[in-house]
Amino acid sequence: MVNYPIKKNASFKTNYKNRGMTLEEDINATNDYYLTHDIAIIHKKPIPIKVVNVNYPNRQSALIDKAFYVTPSTTDYNGIFKGKYIDFEAKETSNKTSFPLQNIHEHQIKHLINVKKHGGISFILVRFTAYDELYLLESRYLEEYYKRSMTGRKSIKLSEFKEKGYLIKNSYNPRVDYLKVIDEII
Amino acid sequence: MVNYPIKKNASFKTNYKNRGMTLEEDINATNDYYLTHDIAIIHKKPIPIKVVNVNYPNRQSALIDKAFYVTPSTTDYNGIFKGKYIDFEAKETSNKTSFPLQNIHEHQIKHLINVKKHGGISFILVRFTAYDELYLLESRYLEEYYKRSMTGRKSIKLSEFKEKGYLIKNSYNPRVDYLKVIDEII
Repeated sequence: MVNYPIKKNASFKTNYKNRGMTLEEDINATNDYYLTHDIAIIHKKPIPIKVVNVNYPNRQSALIDKAFYVTPSTTDYNGIFKGKYIDFEAKETSNKTSFPLQNIHEHQIKHLINVKKHGGISFILVRFTAYDELYLLESRYLEEYYKRSMTGRKSIKLSEFKEKGYLIKNSYNPRVDYLKVIDEII
Repeated sequence: MVNYPIKKNASFKTNYKNRGMTLEEDINATNDYYLTHDIAIIHKKPIPIKVVNVNYPNRQSALIDKAFYVTPSTTDYNGIFKGKYIDFEAKETSNKTSFPLQNIHEHQIKHLINVKKHGGISFILVRFTAYDELYLLESRYLEEYYKRSMTGRKSIKLSEFKEKGYLIKNSYNPRVDYLKVIDEII
């Protein structure tokens, strides 16, 4: 059987829509793209782990045999884009109508608001997996909805993401071009 | 016996000179000061660890019983100061005359140079423990000495830190006020 290039392309194109990649994988691949194309330097921070016991004193051959996950003190991603400080948190939700704020640690929300106050660019990326839709929401709106959650609704509605946020289209490379939106905002 | 406040102060003042704090502890305390005084948001990144095995599926009660240290992809510290992106690496050396460049991973040096290229503020902090002297050296000089190391000297001389860098005086709070220097440079 002959593999027609056009057919391959077509199947490839539909592929990345339901490719089952996690948001983290998409963002990491996007950040790699930004780095190799000299667009931005944005990295995911390592997951904070409290090491309790290590088997060998030599670090090169050290085996950690007792450790625990600890609560992160900041967000997962930060870096620099066009000289600006960038900071964001990324989350997926299977919820079909809203994003529960409890999915983000409170101190991470406060960190994002604080970054904005210090002149940085901060936001959240939220993927609604039911629709494979990824939204960027600036932290000024996150702040607004966070304040609302004190007395009212504890989540951000999908319709609010549609109204106040930006839809990031999936593409091949970069997979989730969130800096395109940031570039338009700044 | 009466405790004279002036005596206490005096002993306190001499205390912090040979207090045996590591550079990391000093920087973390300084960053805490910056954060609580709303001066800057700078955090140490967690040490990257590759987790091989976790005992319980529930993350809250998870015990990691097999893991390894992995090479960090960037520097230890980054954040935002006056809207600017800040990035640096901190090292101690017991060497009395120079700082060996092999003490910093090559890709960390390249990362610092790249940050500068993208309009960020990047530098190294190096403490010569023999004299308890801490220097800040901007990455443009680090780049210069790194290039030199390709064909010549593989270290940065203490005299070069004195000439091209800035001495950060120890103090009580913040312990190592490196942003004071940065504020003068920018």
